[in-house]
This record gives sequence, C-alpha cells and structure tokens, in this order.
Amino acid sequence: MRERARSADDKTLRSQALLNAAESLALELGGVRHVTVAAVADRAGLHRTGARRYYDSKEDLLLELAERGWAQWRDAVAEKLAGASGLDAPATADVLSDTIVGLPVFCDLLAHVPMRLEGDVDIERARRFKSGSFASHDEIVGALAEASELDPPQLRALIAAAVAFAAGFWQVAHPTPTLAELYAQVPEWGHVALDFHPRLAHLLRATAVGLAQEAGEADGR
Amino acid sequence: MRERARSADDKTLRSQALLNAAESLALELGGVRHVTVAAVADRAGLHRTGARRYYDSKEDLLLELAERGWAQWRDAVAEKLAGASGLDAPATADVLSDTIVGLPVFCDLLAHVPMRLEGDVDIERARRFKSGSFASHDEIVGALAEASELDPPQLRALIAAAVAFAAGFWQVAHPTPTLAELYAQVPEWGHVALDFHPRLAHLLRATAVGLAQEAGEADGR
Repeated sequence: MRERARSADDKTLRSQALLNAAESLALELGGVRHVTVAAVADRAGLHRTGARRYYDSKEDLLLELAERGWAQWRDAVAEKLAGASGLDAPATADVLSDTIVGLPVFCDLLAHVPMRLEGDVDIERARRFKSGSFASHDEIVGALAEASELDPPQLRALIAAAVAFAAGFWQVAHPTPTLAELYAQVPEWGHVALDFHPRLAHLLRATAVGLAQEAGEADGR
Repeated sequence: MRERARSADDKTLRSQALLNAAESLALELGGVRHVTVAAVADRAGLHRTGARRYYDSKEDLLLELAERGWAQWRDAVAEKLAGASGLDAPATADVLSDTIVGLPVFCDLLAHVPMRLEGDVDIERARRFKSGSFASHDEIVGALAEASELDPPQLRALIAAAVAFAAGFWQVAHPTPTLAELYAQVPEWGHVALDFHPRLAHLLRATAVGLAQEAGEADGR
C-alpha cells in the first residue's frame, strides 16, 4: 500500500481507503472532530505526505466523506422504498429517519458542514461539494415523490427538517465523557439528550403530518 | 474600568460587560467561532488577565452567554404572550420562532453548545450551565402551557424542534465570504441557504400542527 498510486484505479482505491479510514476513526473516537489526517493516513496504511496527494486538508477529506454520505443516504432511501407507493406522511417520514440513523458519521458531519467545512475550503472545492450533495438530495426528492403522497416542495421541506433534527440531536446524543458522567448523575438530563432515534422519528412524523395538511397553501415554501 | 473589581456589584457589572462585549463581537464578526477572550477583554476595557478572573476560557464565557440567551428567550416569550390564551398550534409555533430569530447570537450558540462548549468544560461548570438553561426552558414550557392548546409534552417536543431548526438554519444562513460568493454565483443554492426566518417559521408551524394531532397518543414522547 505504501507505493505511489500508479493508475486511476489505484488512485480511486486509495481515495476510498482514506474515506473508509476516516469513517471508522470517527465511529471509534466518538465524532469527526477527533479525526486527524495523520491518523487517517496511518489507518489506511499510507504515508502522511501521501495522504495529502488525495486530500489537501481535514476539511477537504471530511467534505468528501459528507458528499459520500449524501450518496449513501440516497441509496438507503431507494433500497428502503423498493417500489413502495402511496406512502402517507408518517410513513414517508419514517423512510427518512430510519435510513439516516443508519449513517451515524453522516449525521455528525451534517452539523459540521455548515458550521465549518464548506465555508473553510476554497470556492471551487465548495462548489464541487454543493453540486454532489445537491444531486443526491434531488434524487432523494425524486425517489420519494414517486412513492409518497407528499409533493416535491413538501418533501424538500421534510428533508430540511430531517437534516436539522439528525444534525442537532446526534450531537446532543454523543456527549464527551465528562458530560456522559453528568448525565449518569442527573438521569433526567440524560434522558432528554440521549434519545436520538425515537426523538428524531417522533418529530419528523409530526413535521410530515403538518406539511401534508398545508397542501394547496403554497406560501412559505 | 481597569481597576480591580472591589465589590460583588462591580464583579457582576464586569461579568455582564464581558458578556455584552462577546455578544457584540459575535454579531460584528459573523459568529461566536470568531470571538476570542482577548478581543472580548479589549472591547470591555479590561486587561486580558483580568478577564480570566471572570471566565476561565472561551468555552466558559460562551456557555455563560448561552445560558443568558436561554433567559432572554424566556423573557421574550413571556413578553410576546402577554396574557394570550387559547393559542392554536401554528400560533404557538409563531411565538417560538418570532422570539428566537430576535436572538441571533443565541441561535448561533445553540449549535456550538452540544458540539463543543458543554462537553469541553469540567463537570461542575457543565452542571451549572445545564441547571440554568433547563430552568429557563422549563419556564418557557410553563408560560406556553397557560397560553396554548398544546400540552407540556407537546410543548417540550416543539421547543426541541425550534432549537434544532434555529441552530441548524442559522449556521446555513450565515456563510463565510467564500461561500457567500458561491451563493451569489449560484442563486438557487443561496436561496435554500439564506431563507432563515421563513423556513424556521414554516417548518415549526408544520411540526406544531402534527404534534397537536397526536393528542392522546402518548408514545414516543
């Protein structure tokens, strides 16, 4: 693995190996904020300087991982739908929440992307991320539109809600050791914080039901 | 201002002056992530070492600002309600969204608190923040419960949604200069990102309507 990549295929493989290494480190360390490019290179079996040929910076690497997360979410939604049709609002919400909770590093990244990552790279790098992630987003809208009673504007609003809930609640549900100790001491605070999937599913269903009711009202979307 | 604080009143005044300085710097610089304790001390007219007598670290200072933000939100909700009663679900949502958008630094902090701030201080500091912010949270629930058709479990869920939307959408709506340039070049991306208040208000109303409909279903809360 320590040789210079010789072909386009090799480059793709190494690039993917680095993303996989970053993902597994994020899972082990409790979040992408603890991941470093050096540790990712070590995990992938590359020289640290070699890793820089694939990703300029931690931001560059994590943006790529976030873009891949959008594609994984798109694939998971398509697989979950599997030809379903006529889904009502709560069932549509469940497709989104059930699939996004299976992508914990993506949930984590969804909070980091607007707060730091996409704003801290150069404009062409940001453009590439936006293009890729919006393409997956639009494919999710398209797939759901064929399977759900909700229309595309409602689905776009529902996806925005799913992203906000997943991003916010994932962070709350993954405390540092200090905070985890506090939650053990004060269980009512821990209960509120750690309830990731049930809270996401509950609130997203409510949002979907409310969005479905405003059919015909086009304002605000 | 550069003398040592002599009385408890002086200490409180200086502590508040530092919080005010941090808030105004966050507004000017486009977010709390750009605020430093040194700049806050300068703005408040204190020696930098003097500021450390009030706040140990940037995290300590920003947690205090977030706790004050919770109290400001509580006060803004109480003022907005002003004896109202029988508010339906959309009107209840509007009370929350109209008041929280008036507290932009608080919206910004709501994303930073779970991601870094409350987990990066010692346990007693975290406990103090949690106690103070939950107290304000519970007073918001209490005030709304008297004015709204929604019950306390529904209101707690609605506040969780408001926090997630405000935190997530504020970050997206406040891009770096690089990202703002990209949004100017690709207006459809900018439109999605910059639509802070309308999107928050729209989605929170939908969530409230959905929560109101599940009256009687106690599961998942």
